[in-house]
Order: sequence, then structure tokens, then C-alpha cells
Amino acid sequence: MPESPDAYPVSERNKVRRLHERGRYDRESVHAILDAAMVAHIAYVIDGQPYCTPTAFWREGEHLYWHGSSASRMLRSQRGGLPVCLTVTHLDSLVLARCGFNHSVDYRSAMCFGTAQIIDDPAEKTRALDAMIDRFYPDRNATLRPSTAQELKATTVIGMAIEQASGKIRNKGVGDEEEDYALPIYAARVPVRTVIGAAEPCPRMPAGVPYPEGLAGFTPGRRLDELMLENQRKKYGAE
Amino acid sequence: MPESPDAYPVSERNKVRRLHERGRYDRESVHAILDAAMVAHIAYVIDGQPYCTPTAFWREGEHLYWHGSSASRMLRSQRGGLPVCLTVTHLDSLVLARCGFNHSVDYRSAMCFGTAQIIDDPAEKTRALDAMIDRFYPDRNATLRPSTAQELKATTVIGMAIEQASGKIRNKGVGDEEEDYALPIYAARVPVRTVIGAAEPCPRMPAGVPYPEGLAGFTPGRRLDELMLENQRKKYGAE
Repeated sequence: MPESPDAYPVSERNKVRRLHERGRYDRESVHAILDAAMVAHIAYVIDGQPYCTPTAFWREGEHLYWHGSSASRMLRSQRGGLPVCLTVTHLDSLVLARCGFNHSVDYRSAMCFGTAQIIDDPAEKTRALDAMIDRFYPDRNATLRPSTAQELKATTVIGMAIEQASGKIRNKGVGDEEEDYALPIYAARVPVRTVIGAAEPCPRMPAGVPYPEGLAGFTPGRRLDELMLENQRKKYGAE
Repeated sequence: MPESPDAYPVSERNKVRRLHERGRYDRESVHAILDAAMVAHIAYVIDGQPYCTPTAFWREGEHLYWHGSSASRMLRSQRGGLPVCLTVTHLDSLVLARCGFNHSVDYRSAMCFGTAQIIDDPAEKTRALDAMIDRFYPDRNATLRPSTAQELKATTVIGMAIEQASGKIRNKGVGDEEEDYALPIYAARVPVRTVIGAAEPCPRMPAGVPYPEGLAGFTPGRRLDELMLENQRKKYGAE
């Protein structure tokens, strides 16, 4: 694949190996997978031992941000930053085929490689945390009780530039061997969706607090991936 | 925590650091989180670089199994096995609090540490793959066209014993500072559910293929975590 400003550089690190026809390296495809998610899994290494930690994360251009994790202590002691792989996965369907081998799932996943750094500058940290709230919940930050210095101090924010990334998408439902289609075996695609339910207001709210306009998109039954993508665009604009 | 056959041994590796009151080390809690999932993220290290790969996985007692991944090549070259961390996460709700600091999510996650090995023995590999199908889809394997030798060869099965593990659970909804509850700020818990939809039968099935009895639990709108837990128990019994 030629070098292109629209695509991530490909090397052994981010090349899709298994079922490489599912691979995507263009920024648009990778961003769409990232932006539809709230939770990522982050792999990092401490003393040769791999760890995989789930965390809420978000994207700003070619930067990813997330909250403190057990890697924070390691990060503090390591000046140059910590190599990580941040992965997002959406499970879209279960695929029941006519033989075991062709059972599968439809999915969208993205792997991002970079070097994680703690964001220590108080102004940048405050900006990032405010952005996180508004990225997930449009216009919410202005309605909140402002953070205290102590809260800010107790929060670790980690960021990284995406050095390389790849996406992987399967979206074809049942795919069987040609000679198997005639067999009297049940085969189907079962869709999977992650959705939100009706908001359960905190019972300790004083009377008369209105439902925020910024949360108008949070309708019961809404797909979380579509909502997250919409909210990302409200905060950062369409690409 | 005292050593106990009902709990995983705790060391620096699996101790829950941040918000340690959410930690669980008993096997029952960890198993329940694992068994409710179909997809895990696996962290491993190649030449110092961490990777995080999503994969379908399942549990048999204190063993975890999954499909080939880009680590397979590494695994083949490494006789003693590859240290991995397998992590499962269920996002249960979004928590909108009265200040940024108390925004959170309810979730259940489990991290499992072990040494991954390729399962090369053909009989054990066949048994594992048949078990995988039936673990996700009760009694399905007997209804399928049997695997060919070539299909079996093209599939990599990886297994590991759980050496250590920890669970982490947040399930409290909104938790604000006592003095903030009176503020006129909207706060709520928004439930998140991953559900299945109605099966979309393959249009190339011959007429008259019945819906399999084993899939009776796959009702539209069913929570995937509950279904996976139920199917695990159908295959392996309750603990």
C-alpha cells in the first residue's frame, strides 16, 4: 500500500495477518470504529508481563486520551512514555454456518499503536477532562459543578499520538462452502446491538431540574455506537 | 487475603490497584464475568511491543480457550508458551454525576493471567472446537457438516490455565459528594445492554429446515450476557 496522508503507514506491527482482506488502514475507517466506542482495551508491558486494561477513551484528531490505569505508576517512572496498543471492538452479529469452521462473528475492530504519556500540565489536563465530558455528553460540562483542585490532582489523564493503526471489519453474515448450501442445516446471522435504556434520574435531585437539551440524543433503545459517533461529531465536527 | 481454594492467589500482578474496593478474587465472581461474554481482549508481547487482540473465547473449568491470532506465529516459535493477559469487560451503564470527577460507568471486568499454548494434538483440538460450538450454541455441533482434516489444520486453537485472575465490578449508579446532591444539576444512570435481534436465516437454506431446538434461548431482544451465561451452564453445568 502506498504512503498516503489519508492512511496509516503499514509495517509488520500493524499489518493485519489473519484474514488480511478484512484489513483497513485508511484513517477514515479507523476513526469511524474508534469514534463509535466509549470503551477500549489497552495492552501494555511491565517487567515483561502483558496487561490488558479496559478504559473509557476518546479521540481528538490523531490523539487518543484515557483515564488513569494501573499503568500510571509505571508511566510516572518512565520518562519516555510507555508503548501501548489500544484496541476497540464492536460485535455486530453472530454467524451460524453449516460447519464449525465457518461459524464466525461480524465485527469492527481497530488497533492503535503509540507511546502513552501522562498529561501533567494542569491547563492541558483540565481542558482534556472537560473535553471528555462533552465528547460523551454534548454541552454537559458547562452545567456541572466545576472540578476542584483536589479532584484534578486525583485524576490521571493519559494521552498518545496514533503512530500506526489498522482496522478490521467483517460484515458478510453467513459464508459457507458452495457445496454446503444445499445441506438441510439451519444457518443464520443473529444481529447483536449495544443499546441504551431509559435514563434513571438520581432520586436525590431537587424538584424541577430539567432534562438537559444536550442529552436529547439519549433516547431509550438507541444504539450506543451510533450515539457515540453522533456525539463525537457534535464535539469535534465531521471529518 | 488468605489463600483459599475458592479464590485466586493475589500478588502484585493481579492486585486491583485503582479503586481496589471494586476488586474480586473469588473464582465464582470471576467465572461469572467470563461466562457472560463471547469476546475477550488478549494482551501479549512480541519483541517488547504489546498487542491487544479481540477474539471469541470460552472457559472450561480453570482453562480458557480461543482461536488463532496474530500471536500464533510467535507461539509456534516459543516452546514454553507466551505470557498473556485475557480481559473481559461488560459495560452496564453510563453514570452522569453532578461534577466531572464523579462521572463513571457501571461495569464488570475480569483479567486473567496465564501462559498461552497452541493445542496441537488433533484429538484435543477437535474436542475443543466441538466444545466451542456447543458452548455458544447448545447442541449445535451434532447438526453440522463435520469438519474436514483441512479445516482442522487451518484452525489454530490456543489454551491457557488461569494462573491468577481478578474481577472488578462497579454497580452503584450515581455517587456524588454529599454536598453536591442539593445542586440543581441533572444526574442519572443510563443503562446499557448488549442484546441480540431476530435471527436472519440464510436465504440459501433449502425449504423445510426447522429452527433448531438448541437455539430456543435466542429470542429477539435477549441480553447477550444472560444468554451466554445460560449456554455455558447448559454445556458445563452450574458451578
